Order: sequence, then C-alpha cells, then structure tokens
Amino acid sequence: MGTTSPGPLRLLRESHEERVLTALRTQGPLTRAQLTTRTNLSRATLSSIVQTLLAKQAVTEAAAGGPTGEAVEVAAGRVRGRGRPVSLVGLNPAGGLAVGMDLGHRRIHVTVANVAHEIVASDGITCAERTPWARRVELAIGLVDELTARHQLSLASLAGLGVGVVGPVPPAGTSDRSALVRDELAARFGVPVFVDNNTRLAALAEATWGAGAGVESVLYLRLSYGVGGGLVLGGRLLAGAGGAAGELGHISVDRDGPRCSCGGRGCLEQYLSGLIDEYGGFEKLIQARDSMTTVATRIGEVLAAACNTVNPEAVVVGGEMTGAGEDLFDPLRAALREYTHTQVHRSLRVEQAALGYDAAARGGIALVLTTPPEEAEWRRTSCS
Amino acid sequence: MGTTSPGPLRLLRESHEERVLTALRTQGPLTRAQLTTRTNLSRATLSSIVQTLLAKQAVTEAAAGGPTGEAVEVAAGRVRGRGRPVSLVGLNPAGGLAVGMDLGHRRIHVTVANVAHEIVASDGITCAERTPWARRVELAIGLVDELTARHQLSLASLAGLGVGVVGPVPPAGTSDRSALVRDELAARFGVPVFVDNNTRLAALAEATWGAGAGVESVLYLRLSYGVGGGLVLGGRLLAGAGGAAGELGHISVDRDGPRCSCGGRGCLEQYLSGLIDEYGGFEKLIQARDSMTTVATRIGEVLAAACNTVNPEAVVVGGEMTGAGEDLFDPLRAALREYTHTQVHRSLRVEQAALGYDAAARGGIALVLTTPPEEAEWRRTSCS
Repeated sequence: MGTTSPGPLRLLRESHEERVLTALRTQGPLTRAQLTTRTNLSRATLSSIVQTLLAKQAVTEAAAGGPTGEAVEVAAGRVRGRGRPVSLVGLNPAGGLAVGMDLGHRRIHVTVANVAHEIVASDGITCAERTPWARRVELAIGLVDELTARHQLSLASLAGLGVGVVGPVPPAGTSDRSALVRDELAARFGVPVFVDNNTRLAALAEATWGAGAGVESVLYLRLSYGVGGGLVLGGRLLAGAGGAAGELGHISVDRDGPRCSCGGRGCLEQYLSGLIDEYGGFEKLIQARDSMTTVATRIGEVLAAACNTVNPEAVVVGGEMTGAGEDLFDPLRAALREYTHTQVHRSLRVEQAALGYDAAARGGIALVLTTPPEEAEWRRTSCS
Repeated sequence: MGTTSPGPLRLLRESHEERVLTALRTQGPLTRAQLTTRTNLSRATLSSIVQTLLAKQAVTEAAAGGPTGEAVEVAAGRVRGRGRPVSLVGLNPAGGLAVGMDLGHRRIHVTVANVAHEIVASDGITCAERTPWARRVELAIGLVDELTARHQLSLASLAGLGVGVVGPVPPAGTSDRSALVRDELAARFGVPVFVDNNTRLAALAEATWGAGAGVESVLYLRLSYGVGGGLVLGGRLLAGAGGAAGELGHISVDRDGPRCSCGGRGCLEQYLSGLIDEYGGFEKLIQARDSMTTVATRIGEVLAAACNTVNPEAVVVGGEMTGAGEDLFDPLRAALREYTHTQVHRSLRVEQAALGYDAAARGGIALVLTTPPEEAEWRRTSCS
C-alpha cells in the first residue's frame, strides 16, 4: 500500500520540468531514453517537456560524443541499436538566467539565479518608505546592472523577471502599481515580467528553497508590521480569483473589532499593529511574555481556520515576530492543536521561515522558473 | 491585456482531457489535426492525451471513411496531402462506464455515467443508520446489478468506481471503513475503486455539474445534521495532507466553546447541532428568523476565514439548512462582505447548491473520470 498520496497537484507540468531538471542537475547530461527512465515520465510527456526546456534555453542538446565518457558509451549503444544519431540533453548554465526583485517598503533586493536554481548574485539597498514606484524600479535596474557587471553575467538569454511589490496584485495584473513595474521592466529587459505581492513570493521561496522545501502544500504566514501570507500547492503559488489567496492577515480575530483598511473587520493585522503601537514597537511586544501567549494564541486560531480549509503539510511562519522564538511558537502550536480537526493537525508541521531578506526576490526567481510557457506568453502579451 | 487569469491549476492534465472530451462531445469524431486546432493543445500534448483516453477506453480511433460524411471529407483531404492513412477519434459511448456510489448515514445511492459525463442510470434506497458497512456495500452492489439489468448496461469496460462514505478518508485510504469498502468493491468489479468522504464528493459534483460548473475554484459547504465541505481547484478535489481539506464544519466559532468530537473546540458543526437540538429540529430553527440571522452570520464568518485563505471564485452552500432561503443567504453574504479582504469578496459568487440526493454519487463518477491513470494505477495496486 502506498504511504503517501500522489496528490491532485502532482501532475502539474512544472513538477515534470522539475523532475527533468533535477535529474540533469544531479546526474549530468543524459540521453532522452535515460531521462525517460530516470524521471519515470512517458516518452510523449518527456519529449514535450524537453521541447519546452529547450525553448526556454534551460537545457541544451548536443550530439553524443563529447567529453562525458559514460553517457557517450550508453548513447553509442543506442546509436547501434536504433540506427539514428543520439543526442545528450544537459543543463545550460550559461543561458537562462532569471532575475528576482523585491520592491519592498524600505528595501530593494535583486537576486539572480540560473535555470538550475543556483543563486549566482544577490544584493539589496535600503530606500525611503515614500520612494515613488518609478524611482524604485530605476534603483532596481541600477542594482541589476551593478550585479551583472560585478559577476560578469550576461543577460542575453534572460528567461524572465519575477518582481515582488507591496499590496495585492490582481491575477490579470491590472493594478496601476504592478502595471507600471511590469511595463518599465519589460521595456528595459524585453522579457516576460511577472509581478506578485512580495509576501506571496516569500511564501513561494520558502516552499522552493526554505523551510517548506520538498513539501507538497505549504501555508506561509509573515508576521511583520504588516501580516500577509501565501499558499503553495504542488510547488505553485495559488493566486485565487482576485489574486488574494493566502491573505491570512485579514482573517478576523474579533468579530466586533474596528473596520480594517482592507474592507474587513477585526483583522489579525489590525490587532497586531494595534498591539505594536501600544507596546511601542515589536521588540517590546516580544519581550512581554504574558501578552505573547495571547497574541500567539490568536495567531494560532487564524492558522487553524486556514488549516481546516486546506489541510496543508506544513505551516511556515516568518517575519520579525518570530524573534520571540518559543514564546511565539509554543502557544501558536497549542492553539493549532486546539482548534483543528485531528486529521488536520496530525499531519501538520509548523516551521520557522528559513530565508532572510532575499526571500521575496528568490520567490520572484521561482515564479519565473515555475511558470509554464503558455502563461509566460500570456503575460508577455499583456505587458508589451 | 488578458481579462482573466489562466490560473496555476489550469495546466492539469485532467483539464486537457476535459478539453478533448468536450470537443468530441460537442463536435463528434475528429481527426488528431482537428483536435489539435480545436483544443489549442500542442501536438505532443494532444498525442499524449489521446493515448491516455484510448487506454481508458474513453475514446475510440477508427480509419476515416465511416458514415460521418463531413469528417471523412476533411480526413480525405489530409490523406491526399500527407500520403498516410488518417483516423478519426471519437467518444466511446458503449465503453468506459463509471459507477458512483454514496454510502450515506441513511441512504445508499448509485449512479452510472458514461465517459462523456452523461448519466445513464441512477437510483437510491434508504437504510437504517446502524447498518454495518459490509451490509451497505452488499446493498449497493445489489443496486448496481438492478440498474444494469433494468437499463441493459454492460460493465465489461467499467472505468472505475467512486464511492462516498461518511467520515474522513486519509489520502492513502488506510481507514478501516474505506479499506473495507474498497476491498469488497474491487474484488467484485475488478476495477480501480476510489473512496472519499461523501460531502467532499458532493463538492466535486457541484463543481462539475452543479452550481459551480465551469468555475475555476469552488469552496463547498454542506449545512446538514453534520457540517462538511470540500475545496475544488481547477476541477479537482484538494485532498490535503490528511485527506481533510475543506473541513469547514470544524472551524471554531467560539474559542471558549466546548470540546468537539473532532478534537477541536467550539466548532461550527457543534454550534449548529446544539441549536438544532435546542429548537427541536431543522424546520423549527429555520423558521426562527431572528436566530437565523445570528446563525447565518456565524456561518458567514467561517466562510470568510476560508475565503481569505483560498480566495475562491465561488462559494456553493448545500444541505437542509438552505431551506431557509434568503433568511440564510442574505446575512451569510453580508458577513462574507464584512469579514473578507475587498479583493476576496469583489471576485466572489455565493450560490445555493444545485444537485439533489445523487450529488455524492455523481461526485464519485467525477472522481473516476478526473483521476489521472497513474493515480488510478496506484490506487489499484493499493487495493489488490
């Protein structure tokens, strides 16, 4: 009997690409026949996936006979057997860079990775909170130029840019802010630009590289001056009908609470920011251990409602408030047990976020690398 | 600019199969070339999908030249152009029946459909609440025999059985109840048997044939003597790590409420069943309009938390309590607006469930028809 569920989301094309890339990353150049065996994909699917990866310049294909002795030997065997030339598929580390950007409230971060998911450059600068968005984009472009010069990177085969911004981004990217960011960057780099909320991108990064790596379903909550979140299912960020899936900061903790700027009432974000003001900052709130128990319990209740809805494999909690350590996590975990179905908490891991300042920028890279070509095409059209 | 998001879940193989089946359902037998154009799939993907559908006996392929004049003419043109024989792909209405069963508390229902999603037979019987599960399975098998005899159906090419049971079903199907049901039915019919919670199957049915048909993401809530739900994303039921995604009845409405049998505290289900007892039945609770406002508001708050988590396109509410009509839906909608992010409620439809007694059985059929072959294979292994 199988011990884990394959899960309805496992069949995403992206996870197939990931399987192929993983095989190439760990085993070097392979023939298509070897790839079929090692990825356990059908020939037709593998062929389609390799085609896509070739188009993205993520992989290259060359006639067998190169320096990789073992692979060539196998390939030669196939040549004899089939009577037609055999080629090797390998990662293209020189091509297919992806750039991730985080245009945050007070910080701009740029990270560059190759299609093999290897980070090749990363840096950030602070900026004033009131910096206009057009100016933030200029600063980010300057940072890209600086990084590519410093690390001698060529953007000739840039796969795309993934950019995190503050505030919700509707799926069709119709907000003024995201349209401006996308248009400016698309004009400058001439590649598809994906814009999403930076907390949601941090969620994707945690699920790809961080505390939720290798986990099928990750619910991410960021506890900072703002409270946001994201939901990653089968390695992909759930957008939701209005681009607001994972808005855990706007789940109500007080049905009679004050009106929130989001349109809701008694939201978790509002409750926390009220307390931060009351205590005179995060540091002081975190030090008030008795209050932290109540605060963490409220947070746990919100997470419990979200977990009863999606029954994730892992909850990842990030943001400054995690500085409270076990004063936060102990009562939070207790509340999660207290307010979820046994079937939900029995299969749940609660983890502290593992990534730092560059989480959202890394999420931008993951967004580029995990977006299927047809969506990329659609987004490219929408911004040209 | 695109007006709707393609959504991360649209690339599921199943939706590709659905596209092919829809084209065949609406346009009759087509050549592969025609299918490629009309489904907007790549040749490689189409070929892989047709292969799968052939293996499932959902479609048949025959050399052009049959009685379908128009298609043959097109095919003949291709024959001349390409110099190789052209075949037509068409639905196989005779083969690939799927059986859905609902083994409910007090009712057993069996529905039979063909792979074209057309219901060909459906009937139900009542049973005592204490009927043992082995006996329920016997009764359901009897009902299948009766229906196939009455409608002269052959189960020779049965694609599978989808069965709804009461209570949670872990993804690997390890509960005693679901294992018993699966083993008995697999032994009797020799096909893959899929078992899931019957409320979750009703959710899938509403998203496939009912109030959520054609909608990308559907959150379903059933308000009956028990309260359950399900979440359907991209046409597929989200299982969750413990098979409990969509357990909205166990979201807490009272943090100081009594302990619930699920392990939680102050759950919506507990709150409602307390009120039903207090009023002496559903009918009387529904008639108490003042109470209904508060009840519907609590339900709306629970839905709001769930909607802030997944931002669905539609909420579908079913079960006996919907008999209250606008006394339920008006305050429920008001609470949803009051306690969700603007971005969440702006894109949200709230609908009453459209299907009746056979909803869970129909969901069983949808489960069979939407489960990719590799998962079917896995489940077959797990029960043989």
